[in-house]
Amino acid sequence: MHSTPSTPLQIARELTNEFARTAVERDRLGGTPKAERDAIRSSGLLALSIPRDFGGLGASWSQTFEVVREFARVDSSLAHVFGFHHLMLATVRLFATPAQWQPWFELTARKSWFWGNALNPLDTRTVVKDRGSFREFSGKKSFCSGASDSEMLIASAIDENAGGKLLIAAIPSGRTGITLHNDWHNMGQRQTDSGSATFERVRVEESDLLLNPGPLSTPFACLRPLIAQLHFATIFLGIAEGAFEEARHYALRESRPWFKSAAEQSSADPYVLNHFGDFWVRLQGARLLVEQAAQALDQAWAKGAALSAEQRGRLAVTIATAKVAASRDGLEICSKVFEVTGARATQASVGLDRHWRNLRTQSLHDPLDYKLHELGEWALRGQLPTPTFYS
Amino acid sequence: MHSTPSTPLQIARELTNEFARTAVERDRLGGTPKAERDAIRSSGLLALSIPRDFGGLGASWSQTFEVVREFARVDSSLAHVFGFHHLMLATVRLFATPAQWQPWFELTARKSWFWGNALNPLDTRTVVKDRGSFREFSGKKSFCSGASDSEMLIASAIDENAGGKLLIAAIPSGRTGITLHNDWHNMGQRQTDSGSATFERVRVEESDLLLNPGPLSTPFACLRPLIAQLHFATIFLGIAEGAFEEARHYALRESRPWFKSAAEQSSADPYVLNHFGDFWVRLQGARLLVEQAAQALDQAWAKGAALSAEQRGRLAVTIATAKVAASRDGLEICSKVFEVTGARATQASVGLDRHWRNLRTQSLHDPLDYKLHELGEWALRGQLPTPTFYS
Amino acid sequence: MHSTPSTPLQIARELTNEFARTAVERDRLGGTPKAERDAIRSSGLLALSIPRDFGGLGASWSQTFEVVREFARVDSSLAHVFGFHHLMLATVRLFATPAQWQPWFELTARKSWFWGNALNPLDTRTVVKDRGSFREFSGKKSFCSGASDSEMLIASAIDENAGGKLLIAAIPSGRTGITLHNDWHNMGQRQTDSGSATFERVRVEESDLLLNPGPLSTPFACLRPLIAQLHFATIFLGIAEGAFEEARHYALRESRPWFKSAAEQSSADPYVLNHFGDFWVRLQGARLLVEQAAQALDQAWAKGAALSAEQRGRLAVTIATAKVAASRDGLEICSKVFEVTGARATQASVGLDRHWRNLRTQSLHDPLDYKLHELGEWALRGQLPTPTFYS
Amino acid sequence: MHSTPSTPLQIARELTNEFARTAVERDRLGGTPKAERDAIRSSGLLALSIPRDFGGLGASWSQTFEVVREFARVDSSLAHVFGFHHLMLATVRLFATPAQWQPWFELTARKSWFWGNALNPLDTRTVVKDRGSFREFSGKKSFCSGASDSEMLIASAIDENAGGKLLIAAIPSGRTGITLHNDWHNMGQRQTDSGSATFERVRVEESDLLLNPGPLSTPFACLRPLIAQLHFATIFLGIAEGAFEEARHYALRESRPWFKSAAEQSSADPYVLNHFGDFWVRLQGARLLVEQAAQALDQAWAKGAALSAEQRGRLAVTIATAKVAASRDGLEICSKVFEVTGARATQASVGLDRHWRNLRTQSLHDPLDYKLHELGEWALRGQLPTPTFYS
Repeated sequence: MHSTPSTPLQIARELTNEFARTAVERDRLGGTPKAERDAIRSSGLLALSIPRDFGGLGASWSQTFEVVREFARVDSSLAHVFGFHHLMLATVRLFATPAQWQPWFELTARKSWFWGNALNPLDTRTVVKDRGSFREFSGKKSFCSGASDSEMLIASAIDENAGGKLLIAAIPSGRTGITLHNDWHNMGQRQTDSGSATFERVRVEESDLLLNPGPLSTPFACLRPLIAQLHFATIFLGIAEGAFEEARHYALRESRPWFKSAAEQSSADPYVLNHFGDFWVRLQGARLLVEQAAQALDQAWAKGAALSAEQRGRLAVTIATAKVAASRDGLEICSKVFEVTGARATQASVGLDRHWRNLRTQSLHDPLDYKLHELGEWALRGQLPTPTFYS
Repeated sequence: MHSTPSTPLQIARELTNEFARTAVERDRLGGTPKAERDAIRSSGLLALSIPRDFGGLGASWSQTFEVVREFARVDSSLAHVFGFHHLMLATVRLFATPAQWQPWFELTARKSWFWGNALNPLDTRTVVKDRGSFREFSGKKSFCSGASDSEMLIASAIDENAGGKLLIAAIPSGRTGITLHNDWHNMGQRQTDSGSATFERVRVEESDLLLNPGPLSTPFACLRPLIAQLHFATIFLGIAEGAFEEARHYALRESRPWFKSAAEQSSADPYVLNHFGDFWVRLQGARLLVEQAAQALDQAWAKGAALSAEQRGRLAVTIATAKVAASRDGLEICSKVFEVTGARATQASVGLDRHWRNLRTQSLHDPLDYKLHELGEWALRGQLPTPTFYS
Repeated sequence: MHSTPSTPLQIARELTNEFARTAVERDRLGGTPKAERDAIRSSGLLALSIPRDFGGLGASWSQTFEVVREFARVDSSLAHVFGFHHLMLATVRLFATPAQWQPWFELTARKSWFWGNALNPLDTRTVVKDRGSFREFSGKKSFCSGASDSEMLIASAIDENAGGKLLIAAIPSGRTGITLHNDWHNMGQRQTDSGSATFERVRVEESDLLLNPGPLSTPFACLRPLIAQLHFATIFLGIAEGAFEEARHYALRESRPWFKSAAEQSSADPYVLNHFGDFWVRLQGARLLVEQAAQALDQAWAKGAALSAEQRGRLAVTIATAKVAASRDGLEICSKVFEVTGARATQASVGLDRHWRNLRTQSLHDPLDYKLHELGEWALRGQLPTPTFYS
Repeated sequence: MHSTPSTPLQIARELTNEFARTAVERDRLGGTPKAERDAIRSSGLLALSIPRDFGGLGASWSQTFEVVREFARVDSSLAHVFGFHHLMLATVRLFATPAQWQPWFELTARKSWFWGNALNPLDTRTVVKDRGSFREFSGKKSFCSGASDSEMLIASAIDENAGGKLLIAAIPSGRTGITLHNDWHNMGQRQTDSGSATFERVRVEESDLLLNPGPLSTPFACLRPLIAQLHFATIFLGIAEGAFEEARHYALRESRPWFKSAAEQSSADPYVLNHFGDFWVRLQGARLLVEQAAQALDQAWAKGAALSAEQRGRLAVTIATAKVAASRDGLEICSKVFEVTGARATQASVGLDRHWRNLRTQSLHDPLDYKLHELGEWALRGQLPTPTFYS
């Protein structure tokens, strides 16, 4: 008899077994994967990164990203909204007071809330008005991943009276004045609901605002963008692993050797083997870089307020390195897998192209060239990255 | 006042202006682009490669492929069925007697027939039965590009009584017993109708068969696979040019510089410029190789029966070289264009990913590795490629 | 009986047959290849690009660069000083008056003068003093390719009284005050004598100065840097062809298949063939780009003073494209040839590494990245390169 | 006051500080670096991998390779002969009886013996004759790294009477009949003395032969080729690190920005930074792979005779992965560093090309393509490498 799964990774694998059945079809459909989101809610994994004291599973970032990566192998849209949910939790943890984040953590764990994103610091169209006892957010916001079907949102607005300062709030997704447009119809990451939102005089209380210590206020608070960056690296790696695994199965079961090949089976063809060797080397390099970065994040996280700017900067380098490698090698693998599967693997029902589309889409969150630029400043001049929402 | 277009390329440009309006939407829909196929019929371009003596436009292969490439920049599915139509005409010209191909040419030019493909020599499921005064083709055939909505088909079957000899016939697409399954649902080249067909005791007359001089019978007849290979190279190049052009427009009109860039406009960012410089170098190399190959094909074609095996072999090398370059550089460009456009260009309505999907799909017709192998035999040992349906 | 060679290319081949015997040894030695320079003098090829009216061979730039490339296949140092000799002749032709360049051309053709280079516009240490009826050049100059063992020099100096204007002069190499330091001890291009020179109050007459029309004064005069750039592209291509050819001979005659290979001979190993196929594709692309650029230069040259800035700009793009491709593909080939030859080909007596060292050295004349930048400005914004001594 | 260095790595750094002064000059000279070899002897590091029980430093393989890598950053020839010395010690440890290797270990530690290599299993020209109470080795052997100026040799010969069985012996380098030809004049690794040897009726006693358990006899004995492969990966990585470090110093201190760059200093140029970012990502990936492989080797080594074929096979995959990555990324870095230093860094006195020459030479020990083939068999089919002297 099959016993109840006990580790988060086992729970995740049960979920991905289900997700895998419909991943290709749901990629075609786009929209909100309501059933799968609810399955994640039921699984308890929305409390994965929440400390046990607040009803969570108490996972480290390494463990949390292990689950994100497991999802990404099969369905990188779900991986993205799941990982971003935990990033939103980290956001309140890092930018707000315990009096704020502790109840949010407890409620999230208890009620399996899903948190979505409406914090895009480069989109400055949403502005704040001060109404005395409260504030109002009004305007548009793009790239709101996971906002649809969420219980809570992290939203931001520009306070023009305070010199364009960015205010960030945690608010219920259903609050009056918030409209999510469900207008994410993109070439990849099609079930991430990364569309636009409109805020029409949305009331924001003082207690909703993440002011103390505030965004990017301390080295510890500055872990927030690094968690985001490592999240991306993890997704890229998971996608590449998924593409590799599907190509492997296809090559073993479906592919036939080219008529000019001396090999009896495709899996003995010298060129097929050479490609798989290449995929393997690329994957192993990216795996070590991503895993090492996750462990380094765990260590930095454990330091809390004691984390120094220097330590945070070195972690930024470690994570940026992993992200660049996972992005480049992942794209290469996702495009080259077709050379080992052959023409029949282009059937829509196989869905092998979704990996390239997903990785290509997600990898554009912020430009690879400027990540290399940043790493160059470190490698050449020993200059650590200046914290921003992207570094 | 705008005068009537007179050259084939001008006619093609008027068509592509129309095709461009719906290319992204039709890529989404898949299926048969009936309106566009009819517009091609009306344009007279189905007679492009047919000599003037038979009512055609008398274009050279260079001119014919110039039109294929113009189509491919915007809609590589239409480019493929259009180019394959002319390949089918070349097939009867090269494998059959004048008494056969001359009336087919005349009828095609007069009635704007579209020819489709059911000749896949690696799919041996369709077999011949000898019924005395006629033959019967029965079985399945995959990858029948352009068979739907065609007037004529080039079909093949295996004659098991003749040691597995490949028989090729030109038959009306509507002949009793032919079922086209319209089952091409693939990740790219989505409107090429490259699905499967079933032949149920399809009657094939002696006069339908391309027996004299027969398939790959002479160096001149062996131009057929080379026309196919150059067709692919042309499509790859056209796709890459289309991706480049769309990325250029997007970068100029829509993209904003990354916030860390010193440039005021994306089009002055050093990394954006570096990528465009790289795309340009790749495109120029591929253009020269493809254009040179087309001119070499024109010269070989003009030689007719006088073409030697050596001359044909050198042409095979020239065309294979162009195909490898166009495939590799094209894939690189189609994947990298996103680095110069940014995340917003992943919107489905932009359709920028279709270029990678189309090129990736079409490039799997036959493996790149074995094309390099073949070129290696030439480069290292001076050995010319042995003619097959893929070389 | 072997008849006297008649074409410049035949003459060049006879020379390279000789150069080849000692190329590896002379690469080791460095210094001035006096015997080979004298053999070039005797061959008459120093008059190659000089019009017949002035006693030259009247070769076009295409033909001149064909000879440069032939030399570069075996000895890229000699190729460089030979090509630069013709660039120096072009310099006086383009920057000076007929009354100046016509006698220089006649003397060069008649006496087989070798021209060397002391024109490095980025090295501003040599300055001019006005002495009334004449001027004096004083200071240092680096990268003076081909200055040693030359009869004439193109030298430049900064006129600080004229706002840092660059003055260029053609002067006998033996003029009082000129010291060539023979201090070129570099990792590649070891017999180009590209060391430093010192000018100590070198007297420069008005008639030595290239003032009318002067440097980069007209679109036609601006062909000078383009001839230099195409010279580099030609050298890179020739080096790559030489590396390919030596690797081919080695692979056919010396290499043995790896013990795990199924092939009986190295030349049938699938990976060896794949590499050679790749080399071939790269070489063919670079060849077409370089040859097309040379033809375009011939056309621009023929226009003379009628050449427009736009025409000159388009030629600059064509040549830059060829240079980038030849540099990148050439370096790849020169490094990868060892994968097809194996470990024994690292013997110093084989000399196979000199190709990488030569190409790597010469390719640093001006940065590839800024060439791509320039091409990006063209590809993206349609902006033609601004003429400088490097564009 | 500077205290005596105490760790092996500190000792190694003191040595490399010395080696660095003459590395460029010794690369030019080739031959045997007698003074440096003696400095290594004096340092005690020849006993590095020897257990403390036998008078050694008791270092793990990780620690041993840390020293190899430190040497390789500055002088990869010394790194190679030093690492191979420890590989020779591992050879007797793994193939011979304790009664044999224990005294050899003790003598090596006590007398600072240097062990050299004359075991090239693919060179079968040296054969065995049975003389009753002893044997004789006669014939030639190529690629005998570190044989010159060594006290002991590992030599091999083919026993034609035993079906071509490979016999391996440990013999004093000075034994009668051994001639080392000092004929290693190669393009890289120029002070490794990897030339040829001749054996003329060299007497080999039973007690010299490594027969029990014998070559590749058990999974534990099969660690020998894996130590060799990891040695190569370590060298490649160290070379790449050395090239990076020298390029960094040069770019910071010597390079000037290109005149078209907006940057005031080369170290702020966007393209220079991009290259350094790229180098960093490649180095970090290779570092993790190599370090992980060394730790895995430590674990396998600790298992001794209990090591299973499966465990040994997985280690082979881990080490092959590291080697491929270090080879490919290392070559890329060693060739590309010139793009960040500029033309002046090609001066022979800078010696920056030696890294590419050293890595290119050493990387040809066994073909990269067949290593990828092997990794492909694992990645695709789950097949572990069959132990040979190269896997």
